[in-house]
Amino acid sequence: MRLPANQLDQIFHPMIDPKVKPKILGKGLGASPGAAAGKVVFTPEHAQSMADKKEKVILVRRETSPEDIHGMNVAQGILTAKGGMTSHAAVVARAMGKPCVAGCAGLDVDPRKKRCSLNGVVLKEYDPITLDGTTGQVIQDAVPLTRPKLTSHFTQIMKWANELRSLNVRANADTPHDAMVARDFGAQGIGLCRTEHMFFNEERILLVRKMILADNPKVREEALKKLLPIQRSDFTEIFKVMEGLPVTIRLLDPPLHEFLPTSLKEISLLAKEMKVSRSALTKKIESMKEVNPMLGHRGCRLGITFPEIYRMQTRAIVDAACKLVKKGMKILPEIMIPLVGHVNEFKAVRDWIVEVAEEGIQKAGVKLDYKIGTMIELPRAAVTADEIAAEADFFSFGTNDLTQTTFGLSRDDAGSFLPDYLERGIVTEDPFVSLDQSGVGRLVEVAVEKGKSVKDKLHLGICGEHGGDPPSIDFCHRVGLDYVSCSPFRVPAAILAAAQAAIRHL
Amino acid sequence: MRLPANQLDQIFHPMIDPKVKPKILGKGLGASPGAAAGKVVFTPEHAQSMADKKEKVILVRRETSPEDIHGMNVAQGILTAKGGMTSHAAVVARAMGKPCVAGCAGLDVDPRKKRCSLNGVVLKEYDPITLDGTTGQVIQDAVPLTRPKLTSHFTQIMKWANELRSLNVRANADTPHDAMVARDFGAQGIGLCRTEHMFFNEERILLVRKMILADNPKVREEALKKLLPIQRSDFTEIFKVMEGLPVTIRLLDPPLHEFLPTSLKEISLLAKEMKVSRSALTKKIESMKEVNPMLGHRGCRLGITFPEIYRMQTRAIVDAACKLVKKGMKILPEIMIPLVGHVNEFKAVRDWIVEVAEEGIQKAGVKLDYKIGTMIELPRAAVTADEIAAEADFFSFGTNDLTQTTFGLSRDDAGSFLPDYLERGIVTEDPFVSLDQSGVGRLVEVAVEKGKSVKDKLHLGICGEHGGDPPSIDFCHRVGLDYVSCSPFRVPAAILAAAQAAIRHL
Repeated sequence: MRLPANQLDQIFHPMIDPKVKPKILGKGLGASPGAAAGKVVFTPEHAQSMADKKEKVILVRRETSPEDIHGMNVAQGILTAKGGMTSHAAVVARAMGKPCVAGCAGLDVDPRKKRCSLNGVVLKEYDPITLDGTTGQVIQDAVPLTRPKLTSHFTQIMKWANELRSLNVRANADTPHDAMVARDFGAQGIGLCRTEHMFFNEERILLVRKMILADNPKVREEALKKLLPIQRSDFTEIFKVMEGLPVTIRLLDPPLHEFLPTSLKEISLLAKEMKVSRSALTKKIESMKEVNPMLGHRGCRLGITFPEIYRMQTRAIVDAACKLVKKGMKILPEIMIPLVGHVNEFKAVRDWIVEVAEEGIQKAGVKLDYKIGTMIELPRAAVTADEIAAEADFFSFGTNDLTQTTFGLSRDDAGSFLPDYLERGIVTEDPFVSLDQSGVGRLVEVAVEKGKSVKDKLHLGICGEHGGDPPSIDFCHRVGLDYVSCSPFRVPAAILAAAQAAIRHL
Repeated sequence: MRLPANQLDQIFHPMIDPKVKPKILGKGLGASPGAAAGKVVFTPEHAQSMADKKEKVILVRRETSPEDIHGMNVAQGILTAKGGMTSHAAVVARAMGKPCVAGCAGLDVDPRKKRCSLNGVVLKEYDPITLDGTTGQVIQDAVPLTRPKLTSHFTQIMKWANELRSLNVRANADTPHDAMVARDFGAQGIGLCRTEHMFFNEERILLVRKMILADNPKVREEALKKLLPIQRSDFTEIFKVMEGLPVTIRLLDPPLHEFLPTSLKEISLLAKEMKVSRSALTKKIESMKEVNPMLGHRGCRLGITFPEIYRMQTRAIVDAACKLVKKGMKILPEIMIPLVGHVNEFKAVRDWIVEVAEEGIQKAGVKLDYKIGTMIELPRAAVTADEIAAEADFFSFGTNDLTQTTFGLSRDDAGSFLPDYLERGIVTEDPFVSLDQSGVGRLVEVAVEKGKSVKDKLHLGICGEHGGDPPSIDFCHRVGLDYVSCSPFRVPAAILAAAQAAIRHL
């Protein structure tokens, strides 16, 4: 009980050598723990080419977007000027177990001029810096780092924690590598596998874009046909790593616009590939922009207007699972429908999934145990949870989005006033970091009560970022969830926090 | 009971002569009832210059924004390609009592080429068309219209309705003219006076922009000082019209970015006026853009980061009221704080209001009866309504925004998939038109219960667009609200619907 669970993951990450007196240039949010040193680069492409030469780099961006993933993947650490604790950079970095300083006020990034300035100090391409993702400090020069050693004490603590806790702990993992890390750390399944991250790979994104911009269902079907084997192999690898444990796969969730090209160069390339004029393509891309994409055409709304996308994904999941079952493996897929607000949305999509799944299972001639459930991430889903529970096998609380809608607060925009709120004591915690128990938590409780009132055995979990936050884990224990799911590197901390919650509420 | 309340406002608007066989070019949403004929124009400036020459025009836009108000004001009717029943065009047109067809699929507007095409038919500037804002039809040529006559039957029906109903009916009105229309129709007060519409007037917008873009509090204070007398005279006029009746004034609500210039010309002008470089100004404007403005820096969040704005508005309200009280008039201002999600937000802003108001009242040496309340338009406000009620004099349900956040659905973006939802029967009604009683309505009920549990006399109303929808009015009657507030032209329909609800649930 004396071990601070939220500091546990520090022991998996390098730290700045305590003998060093670092020169601090500025401070942002400690968005993903650990320290990293390297040369400043401003684009993911440059990070990639430097990494190819075995150079250590720090990727410095105004903010990151899904297109930056490959650069983030090879960088030692990530520094952004904008964004909070659940910004893209922060979430992805934590999932990668990679140090990140986000929302660094005073940082002005100019990628075109290949320079940035931090509180007056100018940093050019290749200048060495060090990030401390635990404290949020940005440090001049590449200072020496040390890597803590895991001792048998850690193993003993985990053993005790595993004996005591009643909450299961799963991980949010989108790749076989992340799944492996999570399993090694003791995760009991995957609580959230986001399929969209699989779409950003260079060779696939073109297919994805064709699918989105297709003017008729035939062109779309063709692109989907090519995506099917790729998705199938994604799922096959993850299922293999997680054999015997449940894997919750969320069907496509983000607004389609996120996948579309923004640079002239990319648009030209795509226009050529699609045999349309650049101006026509630009117009089409423009027409898909949304005023409030977070509240727009996304989640199961995509599945309802483009059923063929979810059908392809379901087929990929079921085919991958059946093939492994045939080889004698135990595969437990859980298909999760995102952004359900009305039971009729769930029913419509569920019916398509069942149709495609049963067909695939019959064709494979095996027995496959799969579940179909939903995210509870909209207030409307929470207050009508009884209606939804009657149809669903499980609920997974998507508390990131539920926080956004319950507060009416965009995590991408909150940076401009949330610091003021914290300073004035209007809120005492960033609600994206620690679950707002009296507001958002109240809706979780309502959904649990309503859900259980119609289905006693309804399986309940949480897959928002709060799944790795000790006070939020305590809340999940109290309201009777079955599991929490968090970034792979947070799994040990979550295991410890779950045990502490069990002791606290014996 | 046999009179359909939702069709009552047809009798105040012109209709297409039943003897005419119109040639229908296309169909959109019947967003604001009545028929209008005129020449097509594509910009508010052009509408204005044509109106100056006494020409009747129809303003055709892809979608409208607050900057278009002056053009909408002089047009006979408004036609938009995008947007739903609560889009900017629809809401403003209904408030103006002006026909509007919104979200007209098949309409492609090209303002630069001064032409649009509707299902293949090209319409150029000055081409005559007719809109039927009741059915949503767009008709070729300017066809003859007739104006229904109000008979004594109408007066008799209103008299019966007024005797029977228990719900009060107020109006949403932002100008003395709208307030007058509302009062003439029998409104018992103003339930929502949006102060932001007052800011878009040509001479004021420059001051507003200076205030927003000010780099230091001094420049901001100066701009606010100039805005103060203008706001004071706005409120003076509205208070006069509504003497003896309550007027609920909502403090500044929309994201500040909405007020900023977008065209190069306007930006240059402003840069010159502010004595800064155009590039610096453009950068500043860019930096204020938000990913999801609906969930961004708006409502009371503005009041908390820029207290001087709400202070100015409070002073204008109190000074205006005191001056009229001195003349012996009975003035009942209700100051409403928007977008409260946490009781601490309410408390902070309320304390500033009280401070400024008490100072103004003392200076004037009169007795002024004013109230301070809040919108309930976020799920978090609904589930913590007991905490907020302990501090507030009244709640006004902002069901437009509450629908957006409860469903996670942007009214500006829903057009791309909501039609699909309606067609497939996933929802049976557009939730922005008729209150979603089992979801959004459940949160209203929760807030009413929680609010009344701590303050028996808490005054409760609704000021979302649903305040004019008969089934939603029935709901408001059932959950025990004190009043509904709707567009001035909907007041008689709301009075009838309120009476019918009272009869239905005797």
